Amino acid sequence: MTYSGDFGLIGLAVMVDHFLENEAKGTNIIGARSIEDFVHKLKRPRKIMLLVKAGPAVDDFIKQLIPYLDEGDIIIDGGNSHFPDSIRRCKELEDKGFRFIGCGVSGGESGARYGPSLMPGGTTSAWEHVRPIFQAVAAKADNEPCCDWVGETGAGHYVKMVHNGIEYGDMQLICEAYHLMREGLGLTHDEIGDVFEEWNKGELDSYLIEITRNIVRYKDTDGIPLVEKVKDTAGQKGTGKWTAISALDLGVPVTLIGEAVFSRTLSALKDERIRASKLLKGPKNAKFCGDKQTFIKQLGQALYASKLISYAQGFMLLREAAKDNNWNLNYAGIALMWRGGCIIRSAFLGNIKNAYVNNPNLENLLFDPFFKNAVEDAQDSWRNVVSQAILLGIPTPAFSTALAFYDGYRHEKLPANLLQSQRDYFGAHTFRYLDECIDNEHPSGDIHVNWTGEGGNVSASTYQA
Amino acid sequence: MTYSGDFGLIGLAVMVDHFLENEAKGTNIIGARSIEDFVHKLKRPRKIMLLVKAGPAVDDFIKQLIPYLDEGDIIIDGGNSHFPDSIRRCKELEDKGFRFIGCGVSGGESGARYGPSLMPGGTTSAWEHVRPIFQAVAAKADNEPCCDWVGETGAGHYVKMVHNGIEYGDMQLICEAYHLMREGLGLTHDEIGDVFEEWNKGELDSYLIEITRNIVRYKDTDGIPLVEKVKDTAGQKGTGKWTAISALDLGVPVTLIGEAVFSRTLSALKDERIRASKLLKGPKNAKFCGDKQTFIKQLGQALYASKLISYAQGFMLLREAAKDNNWNLNYAGIALMWRGGCIIRSAFLGNIKNAYVNNPNLENLLFDPFFKNAVEDAQDSWRNVVSQAILLGIPTPAFSTALAFYDGYRHEKLPANLLQSQRDYFGAHTFRYLDECIDNEHPSGDIHVNWTGEGGNVSASTYQA
Repeated sequence: MTYSGDFGLIGLAVMVDHFLENEAKGTNIIGARSIEDFVHKLKRPRKIMLLVKAGPAVDDFIKQLIPYLDEGDIIIDGGNSHFPDSIRRCKELEDKGFRFIGCGVSGGESGARYGPSLMPGGTTSAWEHVRPIFQAVAAKADNEPCCDWVGETGAGHYVKMVHNGIEYGDMQLICEAYHLMREGLGLTHDEIGDVFEEWNKGELDSYLIEITRNIVRYKDTDGIPLVEKVKDTAGQKGTGKWTAISALDLGVPVTLIGEAVFSRTLSALKDERIRASKLLKGPKNAKFCGDKQTFIKQLGQALYASKLISYAQGFMLLREAAKDNNWNLNYAGIALMWRGGCIIRSAFLGNIKNAYVNNPNLENLLFDPFFKNAVEDAQDSWRNVVSQAILLGIPTPAFSTALAFYDGYRHEKLPANLLQSQRDYFGAHTFRYLDECIDNEHPSGDIHVNWTGEGGNVSASTYQA
Repeated sequence: MTYSGDFGLIGLAVMVDHFLENEAKGTNIIGARSIEDFVHKLKRPRKIMLLVKAGPAVDDFIKQLIPYLDEGDIIIDGGNSHFPDSIRRCKELEDKGFRFIGCGVSGGESGARYGPSLMPGGTTSAWEHVRPIFQAVAAKADNEPCCDWVGETGAGHYVKMVHNGIEYGDMQLICEAYHLMREGLGLTHDEIGDVFEEWNKGELDSYLIEITRNIVRYKDTDGIPLVEKVKDTAGQKGTGKWTAISALDLGVPVTLIGEAVFSRTLSALKDERIRASKLLKGPKNAKFCGDKQTFIKQLGQALYASKLISYAQGFMLLREAAKDNNWNLNYAGIALMWRGGCIIRSAFLGNIKNAYVNNPNLENLLFDPFFKNAVEDAQDSWRNVVSQAILLGIPTPAFSTALAFYDGYRHEKLPANLLQSQRDYFGAHTFRYLDECIDNEHPSGDIHVNWTGEGGNVSASTYQA
């Protein structure tokens, strides 16, 4: 436990040590001997930040703190909590007259050094009390702090979760590009490093591209790229999975994060894949025959377009979660919070911020002129890359699903008319007519038809389930 | 409430009426006035089947029944319950000395007429008591009843859930084939009907192909195929979503069902898609130029191979769920239960049954010689179809993800080595060395490296998190 007159910090996690040795160095943040001593030393309204392991520990500390708190005091959970817990805690504390902030924190090791991205949400009236210190501690991008108020109850942790889901997607996309360069084009790791270096100068400029460049160039003592010796079994800590599950629950097609999570699980089946690789053949004559430099340019475009789809899906999810939870989300602010400090920080997020500043009610990122043009400019390259990957037998699940989403999203008519007919055929689940078909014979409600009747009359009738 | 000397039935759902008017017609199954009256008229051990809406109603009826039951009596839940509820109910009833069966039922309207597929799991000692009536009522395929004991606790409802997930996948695949024929090849619905008729004579022979043929041929009173007037917004009742969530929770790459669920959610965004269709351009010159008959043959192969991947993924999920829940699943029996009666019934499930009869410990369906050869024979066609779809701008998320899975699964090395390096770089999440690289300098435990060091020594050290 540490505190200054203004701000108390309770932490068991690694990050607190980082914080004390870095951001807090030279400040008046110091330790306390007991919870009671700690609470009483703080000015009111007290601001107490928990940096403890997500889960029961957060509830334990809140329970210990409550007897010593006064009305209006603010508890801040800066751990990696699951958003439903933050929604619950916010309600419980507000019911008792206290205030709660669930704050997503991203930045990894470099974030701890240069300032993290902070995503606070919860009791709105608490924001003015923590804003100065939060925005001072946070990373800066384009001279603005990567920290703004996200929204009510669990919104801060929700946005952090989606950030992590998008991080899963970005990493998977980079891995697919790497796979195509390594196996499809047969580039060396140094050559691949040069491509990432080049990409990092343009529209793909981002922290993850930058560290990928450094990774592929990093040599072991024998001169071999270390990454070649790293086992290809991806771990995960669950936030990508949470994002995919939330997307399924809310009915939002966040396909790219879904595929990214599943790709990690497939990679984890290493022993089974080794056995499968000895048994299952790939395509015959799978040799790349085109011009490598042209393909690399197209690959950069495919990566950019796929990434754009992933962010569009992520913001679709935020929009739906906001509806579902009655959050007033600040989309431009979210893009700014992700612009610097956090793992997915990139130049690209500046463009997203601009899109939402230009139009706070933007229905979809793809409707913004900048992004609409970007994806249309990229699409020929994108299609060629995915189609080549398929013929070469190199898996690109994230590139592919991004393209399928783009093509599905821009289709006024999808084949779900057949699907609804099937559901009505075998389970009397009913369907509706297209708006343009509605007339006296084709009413606007739920319809069940006896499809096995051989032609003739359609027994259109509203189905009473 | 109805009962015979042997079997009591409690139902509020539509299915009970169907059952009474059909299977139970002419039997001695009759009504009862009260729960007490009903229970006391049954022979011991009593077998009481609930066909009520999944959720609290099941718990309510169980609670009402318990005071009148004797040790060893059997409660059967034949509703569409979520498997964690069945796991809980089985434990609660067994703790009280009773027996429980959670029984998945599939068949839709035709199942109610020709007998459903029944998937019972729970207290193993209960099976011998219900087997005769269950196997008599169930559909028959190849002269065998589509009902066998699935496994312990919630295994019956779990298998039913995965059945439904696979159903989502099959329907999505058929829709993508339909979309390619309609928009890509410009076929009429009658021509499409002929293709489905042809497919239904070969390896794709299945109930869903059969009803699709009937649907596309079904004309409205004005002679226009009715399916053209059906709104392309797919509904869902949640079991596909449950399957995808379970796959995410258990870490199994069930990508095809995931994409099928997400495709339904994308279809539901009809108004947004209409606006997007006016704004977002597809590929230029997207015209199919090949031979249509050849493409249709390839399309059948793509459908078959993708379906095979979906079932392989489904059985991977069952295997993992069995491990997680300590179930002894009967895989050949499950294939047989799905062979007839239910919505995904098909000739193909006979091949799956054979694969598990030939090798009850089969690691993966793709390791079975029949399926290994089938997918290898199909792969050139499959790659061509997906690659064409991408160039034509027609979304095929399920075909694409199936192919990406196949290519990922048969890769000894995936690019997750880069992903693990990224995770270690930004978050010190550690990685492992490839087995073949392990030596004195490259130990076998969890490794963290300081990737920002410029070349030179690798500070390989076991990371203490």
